[in-house]
Amino acid sequence: MAETVSDELLAAIRTIPDYPKKGILFRDITTLLGNARAFRRAVDALVQPWAGSKIDQVAGIEARGFILGGAVAHQLSAGFVPIRKKGKLPHETVRIAYSLEYGLDEMEIHKDAVKPGEKVILVDDLIATGGTAEAATKLLQQMGAEVVAACFIIDLPDLGGRARIEALDVPVRTLVDFPGH
Amino acid sequence: MAETVSDELLAAIRTIPDYPKKGILFRDITTLLGNARAFRRAVDALVQPWAGSKIDQVAGIEARGFILGGAVAHQLSAGFVPIRKKGKLPHETVRIAYSLEYGLDEMEIHKDAVKPGEKVILVDDLIATGGTAEAATKLLQQMGAEVVAACFIIDLPDLGGRARIEALDVPVRTLVDFPGH
Repeated sequence: MAETVSDELLAAIRTIPDYPKKGILFRDITTLLGNARAFRRAVDALVQPWAGSKIDQVAGIEARGFILGGAVAHQLSAGFVPIRKKGKLPHETVRIAYSLEYGLDEMEIHKDAVKPGEKVILVDDLIATGGTAEAATKLLQQMGAEVVAACFIIDLPDLGGRARIEALDVPVRTLVDFPGH
Repeated sequence: MAETVSDELLAAIRTIPDYPKKGILFRDITTLLGNARAFRRAVDALVQPWAGSKIDQVAGIEARGFILGGAVAHQLSAGFVPIRKKGKLPHETVRIAYSLEYGLDEMEIHKDAVKPGEKVILVDDLIATGGTAEAATKLLQQMGAEVVAACFIIDLPDLGGRARIEALDVPVRTLVDFPGH
C-alpha cells in the first residue's frame, strides 16, 4: 500500500525524550526540514486546500514558523508577514499579550503588515495548547485580516489547541498527530 | 526601459533612520517580504544560478534568514538546515564562537544536519561586516559541507563582508547594494 503523507512525515520527525525537561517528549522538526522530499511534501500537503486561491499573506510565528512560513508563502505566491517576540521589529507595531506556562509574554506585528480584508494563512510548526497561535490569530483579526486558516505540521491533540483556534472561526489544518501528551 | 530586479527590490525595502540607534539607517526587509511579487522575484533571482542543479541543503541563519531560507529551499527542492543562537536546538550540536560589535556570541548547528560532501547554500537577508555569515560558513565547512554559495538580498559593501566569505573560497551573491555605511 502506498505510504501516506502523514506516515512519511511521521517517520521524518525526531522525538527527543526529556527535552527541554524530564518527562517531555520533544517533537523535533529539523529532521523533517532537512529531508528535501519530506519538507516539500509537508509544504504541499499543508496548503493543498488553497492551491490556486488568492492568499495575500502568510503569517509565520518566530522562529520555527518562519522556515515553514517562508516556504508556504513561496508555494502560494503570497507575501510573508513575521509575527515576532516583542522588541524585534523595527517599525511601528501592534502588540498582544498571551499566557505561557509561567507568566505572560508579548508578540508583535508591524502595524502596516496586513491590510483590512486581506486573506491570511497563519503558519507554525506545531500546535500544543494553542496559546501562541490563539494570540497570533487575534492579532491578525484585530488588524482586519480574514484569517483563512491556521496550519501546523504537528498537532498534540490532547492539549486542546485546535478548539481554541476554531473558537475564533478559523479552520485548523494539521498533518501529523501525536496523541498522549 | 524595463525595471530591473534590483530596482524593484530596492523600492520594496524600507529604510528606518536611527534604528536600532542614532545614525544607523536600518534596511527593513519586511516590506519586501510582504510584497508577494517582490518576495518571489527576490527568491528566484537569488538562486537563479543554481536552478536545476542538485543542492542538498539550504542553511538559514536565525531569525530573518529562516524566512528567506525556507523559501529558497522550497524553490530549489532542497532540505533546510537551521543555524541558531546557542541553546535553541534540541539535539547534539556543533558550536562556533564569533565576534559581535561588543563581545562574543555563539551559534550552533545540529551535528547530523549536514553530511560530508553535501552541497549547501547559505542564506541570510543581509551581509554587513560578515561576522555572522563567516562563522556560519566555517561551521558548515568544518562539518565537511561544500558551501556552494552564500546568498543575501542586501549587501552593505563598504562594511567588507563579501571579502571575508570569499576568503573561505565561497562565492557571494547579493541583489541590492546600499553603499555609504
